[in-house]
Amino acid sequence: MSSASGKQPQVITCKAAVAWGAAQPLVIEEVEVGPPQPFEIRVKVVSTSLCRSDISAWESQAIFPRIFGHEASGIVESVGEGVTEFSEGDHVLTVFTGECKTCKQCTSGKSNICQVLGLERRGLMHSDQKTRFFIKGKPVYHYCAVSSFSEYIVVHSGCAVKVNSDVPLEKICLLSCGVAAGLGGAWNVADVSKGSTVVIFGLGTVGLSVAQGAKLRGASRIIGVDTNPEKGDKAKAFGITEFINPNDCNEPIQQVIKRVTDGGADYSFECIGDTGMITTALQSCCDGWGLTVTLGVPKVKPEVAAHYGIFLTGRTLKGSLFGGWRPKSDLPSLVDMYMKKEIQIDEYITHNLRFEDINEAFNLMREGKCLRCVIHMPV
Amino acid sequence: MSSASGKQPQVITCKAAVAWGAAQPLVIEEVEVGPPQPFEIRVKVVSTSLCRSDISAWESQAIFPRIFGHEASGIVESVGEGVTEFSEGDHVLTVFTGECKTCKQCTSGKSNICQVLGLERRGLMHSDQKTRFFIKGKPVYHYCAVSSFSEYIVVHSGCAVKVNSDVPLEKICLLSCGVAAGLGGAWNVADVSKGSTVVIFGLGTVGLSVAQGAKLRGASRIIGVDTNPEKGDKAKAFGITEFINPNDCNEPIQQVIKRVTDGGADYSFECIGDTGMITTALQSCCDGWGLTVTLGVPKVKPEVAAHYGIFLTGRTLKGSLFGGWRPKSDLPSLVDMYMKKEIQIDEYITHNLRFEDINEAFNLMREGKCLRCVIHMPV
Repeated sequence: MSSASGKQPQVITCKAAVAWGAAQPLVIEEVEVGPPQPFEIRVKVVSTSLCRSDISAWESQAIFPRIFGHEASGIVESVGEGVTEFSEGDHVLTVFTGECKTCKQCTSGKSNICQVLGLERRGLMHSDQKTRFFIKGKPVYHYCAVSSFSEYIVVHSGCAVKVNSDVPLEKICLLSCGVAAGLGGAWNVADVSKGSTVVIFGLGTVGLSVAQGAKLRGASRIIGVDTNPEKGDKAKAFGITEFINPNDCNEPIQQVIKRVTDGGADYSFECIGDTGMITTALQSCCDGWGLTVTLGVPKVKPEVAAHYGIFLTGRTLKGSLFGGWRPKSDLPSLVDMYMKKEIQIDEYITHNLRFEDINEAFNLMREGKCLRCVIHMPV
Repeated sequence: MSSASGKQPQVITCKAAVAWGAAQPLVIEEVEVGPPQPFEIRVKVVSTSLCRSDISAWESQAIFPRIFGHEASGIVESVGEGVTEFSEGDHVLTVFTGECKTCKQCTSGKSNICQVLGLERRGLMHSDQKTRFFIKGKPVYHYCAVSSFSEYIVVHSGCAVKVNSDVPLEKICLLSCGVAAGLGGAWNVADVSKGSTVVIFGLGTVGLSVAQGAKLRGASRIIGVDTNPEKGDKAKAFGITEFINPNDCNEPIQQVIKRVTDGGADYSFECIGDTGMITTALQSCCDGWGLTVTLGVPKVKPEVAAHYGIFLTGRTLKGSLFGGWRPKSDLPSLVDMYMKKEIQIDEYITHNLRFEDINEAFNLMREGKCLRCVIHMPV
């Protein structure tokens, strides 16, 4: 392998926030980051934001030691054999689901579920099912093929997107997952129409990005539902026109929604990661053409259940990964929209933290006190 | 009220096949059929075909005595007050779900889930929640607001569609439900595309009508799945290109389908009425754009369940009633297509029976030995 500059990339020793066990505070450790293998790139992470699914995996999954983090931006440090798309110094966004551009799904032009670089669940690299991180020679597992809570990371070149050097890396890392997923949910998956009524369950970054997407499409009512009373006021800035806290209601939330919308919303979005709420979301949209989009990754019960009558009366349940965006084909246009101020990103950043304070970001997210915490890596 | 000819419609005494209890053979009884109330019409039934959902309701539901039957054609005998669309002597198709043309759903132009004349489950007429059938003055319940296993029936004028007098009533009764539902499932609900791969679970009339619809759209592979080995050969005539009997397979049917289709079908249709098979149908369609349409009405377990990962990877579950057709707006064009030989109906009629042999039709359907039995009412 060789870097763009002709040097042979060597092992880099750097700092990474390592999770040693479920829900245990991360420990900043010295890790060895191996050189990029064929078709991989090594990236110096500049900014990384914390997503709810990092927390869910950290709380529940059994693969440890592990380095979490998947919303990130950085600068290419070196490239592996066969990489022609990237050179040392390129600015990139990393993505947790790649685009190989050759498989049946990628070449269909209508899917982002790449068969080669899809969601990686075992903590290993796609190419050789091994890790690139080590501590004293022992493997440390990846998360979603990104693991951005490290100063340096190795990612497959199919899981990175080049951006211009004038794009603010400390902002656009949010397009790696949350904000893009929500916008894509509204645009690609639901295809929200002008004048429609939308209900959004869960007003985190994904839910509020659905709201932004629905607002930009001209939805006339965007009802936000969250049990956290602090979400209400802040949500208005993202397009939410009405806020309902189920805890303030005397009847099930789906009945409230049906009542205030004269039979149900045109579109409902589950952005919590609770399969029970998918059922509620289905019950909250209308007969005939009601569409429910599920965007959350469930933390507990993985089964979605609903009475068949929900479907018999003309409803649709649609899922998506990353809001249906094909990362390489589609993300550059989202970055452009941000640069032209056609979409908001900065407003989702409620906290900026130093890398050494990463556990504070975890606490803020668990307590529902943030939207996105951007973690700034050492320069 | 008045009939089109100015006469006041009177009670008619005629023969009807009455179900006195769950799964008990029907008994042909003398029934009194009341005059049509405002916006209703009374129809002399000419032909009626037996649908699987008549059987399911007869086997399981608790409303008795009842007159089943909902696929039917006939001739208007008299009309109630306010009816201007129909006159005595008009030929009509009856439908189990109406179209009022005034409610939010009907006026949306994108739904057939009429809020006024939708699926009636209590055995009563939409307009006054009473019956029009009596035996010695005691009410006999309706089924789906049609109850065509009677020489005369009263239906809401919104639940009937006028057809030209040259249309063969003994054939087009199949468009009242089964054949139309299947064609609509392929065309309106799934919008099957040319060259696609389709898998159909259950090769009754609905499943084979999906096959016809998919064939007419140019699907390149139409895989039929049924546990009845006799279905295979006959299914080819309707467009099925491959037949798979799950009982002949050594692995779960969804794995077979995924293997033979290189990852799953583009479209899968559940036409059995088994919620467990909806899950199987979802598992049988592909990542990225796989669409499952549920057309069957479940006989037993009403809960649809599936792992959220099925949706996360880009699948959609869509339901429909009557294949999404708006009966008054859309059925006339289906009748026209039949008259121009653009769609097949006759081929689904495997048996023609006299009214007095109606229990034979029930036996044939329960034993899986027929597609459609047309019951010819006394002239």
